[in-house]
Amino acid sequence: MAPTNTALIYKQVPSGAPVPGKDLVVEDVQSVSEAPKGGILIQVLYSSLDPYLRGLLRDPSIKSYFPAFQPGNPMQTLSIGKVIQSSTNQFKEGDLVEGRLPIQRFVAIDSDQLKGISKSQADPNDSEFDIRHYLGALGMPGLTAYSSFYEIGKPKKGECIFVSSAAGAVGQVVGQLAKHEGLTVIGSVGSDEKLDLITKDLKFDSGFNYKKESPKDALKRLAPQGIDIYFENVGGEHLDAAIENMNKFGRIIACGMIAEYNAKDESEKYGHKNLMMIVGRQITMRGFLVGEDPSCGPKHKDDHQRNVKKWLKDGSFTAKIHEWDISEGDKGFVGMLKGENFGKAVLKVS
Amino acid sequence: MAPTNTALIYKQVPSGAPVPGKDLVVEDVQSVSEAPKGGILIQVLYSSLDPYLRGLLRDPSIKSYFPAFQPGNPMQTLSIGKVIQSSTNQFKEGDLVEGRLPIQRFVAIDSDQLKGISKSQADPNDSEFDIRHYLGALGMPGLTAYSSFYEIGKPKKGECIFVSSAAGAVGQVVGQLAKHEGLTVIGSVGSDEKLDLITKDLKFDSGFNYKKESPKDALKRLAPQGIDIYFENVGGEHLDAAIENMNKFGRIIACGMIAEYNAKDESEKYGHKNLMMIVGRQITMRGFLVGEDPSCGPKHKDDHQRNVKKWLKDGSFTAKIHEWDISEGDKGFVGMLKGENFGKAVLKVS
Repeated sequence: MAPTNTALIYKQVPSGAPVPGKDLVVEDVQSVSEAPKGGILIQVLYSSLDPYLRGLLRDPSIKSYFPAFQPGNPMQTLSIGKVIQSSTNQFKEGDLVEGRLPIQRFVAIDSDQLKGISKSQADPNDSEFDIRHYLGALGMPGLTAYSSFYEIGKPKKGECIFVSSAAGAVGQVVGQLAKHEGLTVIGSVGSDEKLDLITKDLKFDSGFNYKKESPKDALKRLAPQGIDIYFENVGGEHLDAAIENMNKFGRIIACGMIAEYNAKDESEKYGHKNLMMIVGRQITMRGFLVGEDPSCGPKHKDDHQRNVKKWLKDGSFTAKIHEWDISEGDKGFVGMLKGENFGKAVLKVS
Repeated sequence: MAPTNTALIYKQVPSGAPVPGKDLVVEDVQSVSEAPKGGILIQVLYSSLDPYLRGLLRDPSIKSYFPAFQPGNPMQTLSIGKVIQSSTNQFKEGDLVEGRLPIQRFVAIDSDQLKGISKSQADPNDSEFDIRHYLGALGMPGLTAYSSFYEIGKPKKGECIFVSSAAGAVGQVVGQLAKHEGLTVIGSVGSDEKLDLITKDLKFDSGFNYKKESPKDALKRLAPQGIDIYFENVGGEHLDAAIENMNKFGRIIACGMIAEYNAKDESEKYGHKNLMMIVGRQITMRGFLVGEDPSCGPKHKDDHQRNVKKWLKDGSFTAKIHEWDISEGDKGFVGMLKGENFGKAVLKVS
C-alpha cells in the first residue's frame, strides 16, 4: 500500500487575504507509489513559501508575469525533494532534486515534466549546509538579493541603504550584504522581536517596527543624512517615505510590494503622489524578476554561491529559516504573507 | 539717456496656476547703460520659457533642486544676448553670449557674475541657424532630449516609444530622434492642431489629443503591441497609462511632470496605484536633470551638436519655435505652462 499522500490544495480565488481552511486546504490526496515510464517518483522534502505566490491565487483570466494557479490543484512552488524511484538515466534513487513542484508529499514526474527538474545544488552527503538554505540564502531568494543589490543597487562604501521587510528571506540577505560592503543599513520590520533579530543577530545599524512608527518618521529619525539605496519589498507608505528621504542619484531596487498583494480593488491600494521627486532627485527605480532578467540572475550566480557559502561557513553571515509543517501549510502560507516568519519561510513537506 | 528697460517681474508666489498681471507682471525697470567695472552690458535678445521654471515660483523656504526665485525681482532663465559694452577682455562688443539671465532688456553683469556667462555657440556671422535654436533644439531642451533618449531610453530599432507633450521643446526632438533610430513613435498633445503638427510636419507614426481621448484608451488603440519606452513630460494619467501599456524591460525617461506643477496641495495630485507593474514588467524608471547628471549632458554634448545641426541643415529634422514678445511675457509664460506653444517657447526680449 502506498504511503499516505498529503497536499496543500488551492481551493478558490481569495477575496483579500487568503483564509486558511477555506481558500487553501491541507488534504489527503491520491497516493502515488511508482515512477511513470521515463520519469521519477519524488518525495518532496521542503517547499518554499514566497510572497510572489500570492499573485498566482488570482482569477486565471487576469494575465500577469506568472500564470495563475488553477483552483482544485495543489499549490506549486520551488521545492527540494529526494528521488525515491527512477525510470530514467537522468536521475537515480537518492538524488536530491529541485524544481517547481506541487506542495505534496509524493509526486510522480513524467518524462515531459522532467525538464523542469534539476539536481539540487545541495549535496546529500555534505552535512555542511542545512539543505533548506537552498530554498533561501543559497537559493532563489538569496540570488534575488545578491544579484539585484549589486546590479541595480550599485552600492558604494559609506552609503546608506534602507531595506524593507528586513527580517524576510530576501531582506536578511540584502542587509548583511550591505554591511559586508561597508554601508549603513536601516531595516524595517513588523514586530519588536524582529527588530531585535535584525539589529542584534544580523548586525544592521538600526531599524524600526513600522507598526509602531511610520516609515516617514522613522527615516527622518534614523537617516537624517538621507538614503542612497532603497530595497523595495513592501510598497505603499514604505516606498513613499523612501522616495521622500532619498538622496540625489538614489537607486530603488523594486523586488516586490507585499503591502498591495491582498488589495481587493483599487480603493485599497496606496496612491503615490511624490513621483515627481524621481525627476528632481534623479532617482533610478528598477523592477526585476530574478528568473527572467539576464543581468539579475545568471550573471551573478557563481559569485552568489561562492560568497554566501563562504560567509555562512565562516559565521559572518546568518540565514534564519522559519519552518511550518505541511499539516499547517495553509496557515503557514497566510502567516508568511502576514510576516509571521523570521527569515526564510519553508514548509516541511516530508 | 539710457533706452527704456523692460523686465518680466515675479511679484508673488502663485496659488495654483500663475495669474498674468498679478503673480507675474511686465514692467519698466531702472535703465542701465554702462558695463560695470570688469563686467559687461548685455542686451538680452531671447529668453527661454521652460516648464521647470514653474517650480521656482514657490515659497523660498521649500527646498528643491533649484533655488526658488525671490519675489520682487525679474524671473531668470537661460537667455541669449549681445554684448553692448565690455569692460573685460573676456568679451568684446558684439559677442553673442548665453547664460542664466534676468528676463530684462538690458542687463549689467559685474565681474562676479561673469562666470555664469559664456560665448554663445551661435555665431553672429553665421546665418545658417536661427539663433533661437540655441535655446531649443541646439540648446538645453535639445540636449535634454538627446542625451536621455540614448542614455536612459536605450532605443532599439523596431521598438515603440510613447512621447508625452510631444509638440513641446523636448518632445519634438525626442520623437524625431526616435524616428531616426527606426522606432514607432506615438505622441500625446493637447490640441488637434498639434496633432497635425506631430503627425504631418514631424512625421510621428501616430498621436492623440489627450483632451479628447484618455491616454489609456489611446495607447490601447495605437499601441496594441505595447510600448517599450515612455518619455515622461507630463505625469498623472499619462504615466499611469504608460506603465499599464508597457512591455517587459520597458524604460521610462522621467524628464518632468508638468501636470503636477500647478497643484495647490496633495489633494490635487494624481495618486499612482500601479507601481507594482514596475516589478512584474521589470521596468526601469529614471529621473534626470540635464545640467547635473554627468551621463545625461556632457557625455552627449558633441554628438548632440553635430547631429542635430546636420539634420536641421539637411531638412530631415524640424524644430518649431513659438515666440512671444516681452510685452506679453507674463501671458507667454502662463501660456507655455498651459501648452499653448507649438514647439520651443521663447520670449523675444529685444
